[in-house]
Amino acid sequence: MNEKRIVVIGGSAAGPKAAAKARRLDENAEVILFQKSPDLSMASCGYPYYVGGFFDDRNQLLCTPAGVVRDTKFYLNAKAIDARPSTEVTAIDRKAHTVSFRNLVSGATGTQAYDKLIVATGAMPRMPPVPGIELAGITTLQSMKDADFLRSIRDAGKIKKAVVVGGGLIGMETCEALHLAGIEVTVVEMLPQILTFLDLDLAMLMENHVRAKGANVIVGNGVAEFLGEGGKLTGIKLKNGTELECELAVVAIGVVPNVALAKSAGLEIGTTGGIATDAFMRTSDKDIYAIGDCAEIEHRITGKKLLAPYGDLANLEGRVAGENAALGDSVTFPGTIQTGICKVFEFSAGATGLSLANAIKNGYSNAVSVVNASADKPGFMSGKLLVTRVVADRKTGKILGAQVVGPGKVDKQVAQWALSIQGNMTIEDVVNADLPYAPPFSLAIDHFIATAHLMQNTMKGRLKGISVMEVKRKLDAGEKPFFLDARGPEEYEAMRLGIGETLIPLGAVRKRLGELPQDKNAEIICYCKISLRGYEAALAIEAHGWKNVRVMEGGIMAWPYPREK
Amino acid sequence: MNEKRIVVIGGSAAGPKAAAKARRLDENAEVILFQKSPDLSMASCGYPYYVGGFFDDRNQLLCTPAGVVRDTKFYLNAKAIDARPSTEVTAIDRKAHTVSFRNLVSGATGTQAYDKLIVATGAMPRMPPVPGIELAGITTLQSMKDADFLRSIRDAGKIKKAVVVGGGLIGMETCEALHLAGIEVTVVEMLPQILTFLDLDLAMLMENHVRAKGANVIVGNGVAEFLGEGGKLTGIKLKNGTELECELAVVAIGVVPNVALAKSAGLEIGTTGGIATDAFMRTSDKDIYAIGDCAEIEHRITGKKLLAPYGDLANLEGRVAGENAALGDSVTFPGTIQTGICKVFEFSAGATGLSLANAIKNGYSNAVSVVNASADKPGFMSGKLLVTRVVADRKTGKILGAQVVGPGKVDKQVAQWALSIQGNMTIEDVVNADLPYAPPFSLAIDHFIATAHLMQNTMKGRLKGISVMEVKRKLDAGEKPFFLDARGPEEYEAMRLGIGETLIPLGAVRKRLGELPQDKNAEIICYCKISLRGYEAALAIEAHGWKNVRVMEGGIMAWPYPREK
Repeated sequence: MNEKRIVVIGGSAAGPKAAAKARRLDENAEVILFQKSPDLSMASCGYPYYVGGFFDDRNQLLCTPAGVVRDTKFYLNAKAIDARPSTEVTAIDRKAHTVSFRNLVSGATGTQAYDKLIVATGAMPRMPPVPGIELAGITTLQSMKDADFLRSIRDAGKIKKAVVVGGGLIGMETCEALHLAGIEVTVVEMLPQILTFLDLDLAMLMENHVRAKGANVIVGNGVAEFLGEGGKLTGIKLKNGTELECELAVVAIGVVPNVALAKSAGLEIGTTGGIATDAFMRTSDKDIYAIGDCAEIEHRITGKKLLAPYGDLANLEGRVAGENAALGDSVTFPGTIQTGICKVFEFSAGATGLSLANAIKNGYSNAVSVVNASADKPGFMSGKLLVTRVVADRKTGKILGAQVVGPGKVDKQVAQWALSIQGNMTIEDVVNADLPYAPPFSLAIDHFIATAHLMQNTMKGRLKGISVMEVKRKLDAGEKPFFLDARGPEEYEAMRLGIGETLIPLGAVRKRLGELPQDKNAEIICYCKISLRGYEAALAIEAHGWKNVRVMEGGIMAWPYPREK
Repeated sequence: MNEKRIVVIGGSAAGPKAAAKARRLDENAEVILFQKSPDLSMASCGYPYYVGGFFDDRNQLLCTPAGVVRDTKFYLNAKAIDARPSTEVTAIDRKAHTVSFRNLVSGATGTQAYDKLIVATGAMPRMPPVPGIELAGITTLQSMKDADFLRSIRDAGKIKKAVVVGGGLIGMETCEALHLAGIEVTVVEMLPQILTFLDLDLAMLMENHVRAKGANVIVGNGVAEFLGEGGKLTGIKLKNGTELECELAVVAIGVVPNVALAKSAGLEIGTTGGIATDAFMRTSDKDIYAIGDCAEIEHRITGKKLLAPYGDLANLEGRVAGENAALGDSVTFPGTIQTGICKVFEFSAGATGLSLANAIKNGYSNAVSVVNASADKPGFMSGKLLVTRVVADRKTGKILGAQVVGPGKVDKQVAQWALSIQGNMTIEDVVNADLPYAPPFSLAIDHFIATAHLMQNTMKGRLKGISVMEVKRKLDAGEKPFFLDARGPEEYEAMRLGIGETLIPLGAVRKRLGELPQDKNAEIICYCKISLRGYEAALAIEAHGWKNVRVMEGGIMAWPYPREK
């Protein structure tokens, strides 16, 4: 029997994983890995941290955990993989089962036969189609070369002002990196908010933090033109006419899957623009797989196809394709629930599953959300704030999504929600979750469980919440509900919203019912710092006959708008 | 209609939660809370951190997150709960539906009628029945009074040597606290290991860390006698005759549920010694609930009754009993999977679900385990080691349990396993889990997922693992398998086991097959630092015909025994 030839196109994340997995499952296969760039198996998600100075040795982005650089020699000896960097695959001949390639250094060309082909051609940064885009000083942060360039700027210390175009995950990570490099940074985002995987209010909490750290954020305004002198960037003109001086611009407005090769070969391209795949990660040609940023995959909740250019999924898809290429199609990839996270200065922001709006749009007409704000650990262990919005189906209790922001341990919270969703769990399944508790790690009732309690109370009709966004809309519309701040006088002196609220500490509510509106149908909105006391105040008030009492979810800690104090 | 009278006995964790929940659900009920101690609602899990100096204000253990001490005034005004500290309930008259009480300060006695009674009488420390137990200088760390006493010892700075009797969770937390107080500490544990929720090898990794931090650990040796002079502790005599000098001994050998009151009232006591409860947290008397450390609950996997004296469960049980007492029996408590965690210096140790031995004992005859060692984050983000043993059913893939130790983020790992178990998930369900990945938070393939991959490979027969414990038994029995260390020469120079191994770096394995035993049935055991390269070496060797090749799980990082270097 001839040895099986498994050819992989792409050597960043998905490709090397697929090649290594195939090798492990078939010691006798010939495994060949083509990579257009000179580097192999880069930890590309680490670029912002290299630029930001979290570490100084660029090889750490290219190393195994044991400190060995993943070069061709490493691939050959340790993995028995024939890795060919700086080599572009120029065509796929599906009939002949070959690929044509060209060495970008020597110019040499050739063809390589395959039995199974794995396409992991990645994605390229989207660039805004505006004048001046060719100026020197405009870059992305998508390749090792980009990372080297931005790191050299950090090390040179000459550039004073930069603009990051795009307030997504990579944009905000880059904002932090450049700020840490001592550069004055402005993030420009065309949409009304940064980090669009978050709802507006949570995104605004992130924005407030970024501004508090000294970086600028402009939302709802796009780039009209890059301005320059002598071929060099000097500034950016925004759509509203504002001009921002800058010597550096990093464009991070998303990526476009690299599908030209696949398209030329006649492989089916999905409506998302990515290479269409099935659960085995196969393309429309059963001998060809597509994985990573170039492929479209399925949303595990909605069943819809989407692009999910994330490093973790790329690795998992690679593992599936590698096994199927080596052993025949036997394992499947279930898709994504769009779990993501990023750190921006001392805050983190993460999300998993569906937002409330997306849930409703996807047929969950009974979807409901609630916000919880609390510390991640006890105060005496220096607990830090977490603000979570969870989304569930009111009828079945099925957990649909969650968003978490704050200085607390966001990653653990998001991971817990992500597993709950992937385990098809309901709110009832997690209200009594048995999680690892000790004061260095969590509250006795972990923030995750407490959030589930709020959702359970909401589903049972006990907690009638109102989001800070809805409250803001009421205020903007000139409505005047009775606002009850249930905190203590000292807290009120130190910090308050100033939205016409009346301070009635929880301990005094039952005695001061006379200060409430006489009309038992009047709208009353209770809150406190995190709206736990606000909730208790609301229950006491309702028990005395008021019929239109709500709790402002998350309290002052979830309020992202300016406050009086 | 008369107001419902809900009486709660016990004001530490479960009791106050039940009282508060009952109040929130029935504003008109009369809610009365009896508490024997003078303090209310103490964060008792925080005692070791107060003693250890993580914070200095004892009130932080008694405060709401807003900084209000939970005293009788707070309970009355904010919660409308009649809290009666320093008041012991001396008898329950089930027929009359009353309790008798006695104020421990004034001596006043009385009776209180109830419609629903919630028993949360907690547990008391188990004391070793040995001579000298009455000496001054012997304490526990179970009450606010204990915490005050040990904190005063820290602050006085006079005591030089202490012994902690018992190497469980509280014992090890106390060990750290006393060490941080500048006291020379020895932990004495009667069993062959500390932290018995861990398997021996993982427990030994914790022991090694504790010793490396400068505290002493003696296992397999109990206390025979407390030695004293003039009524004061001067030392401890162990069962093997060893004498340890010490001026302070903290006993932490577990707790015994306080069931005397319940027993006198004729409530059913379970075989575990705790008050028997059903899923509603009801006792054998349908008007009486039992919650917290005094009650027995069900194991969610085995269905067996057990005692689970943990603060988080106490709160959740309280929430269930409070709702049922207020509204009629409508919500249930599902029990525990015995999830627990503790921090000991820079390491943490946690577990959830069943160990391999327990799984087999409970009917999972196909249970199998595997160990994974890896960093929690990339090296360039200063990732720290995690060592996990996961247990699953080989036939169904059902996840049964996990244990995690190390300096990495143990709590997140244990939480992920705990939710997987509670979601009835299988290994196949989590091998492609979509978790929040970015370099500040995890590896691209999180340790949890990578561990699931190892288990999947084990279940598919690809990874043939052997635990470090089994390897040690072989060595102790004089067996001489061929040990292959697949690391590089520099790593070998820096650190090695010295168990007769041959160094063949992974990259050279395929070229140096001639150095392996000629007999293709000879036993070969491969490993490396974490046994990823060891695994790849094993696969390559097997592909060349060797039939008895295994991988030492977790590699050198999981090896808790002395090593050559």
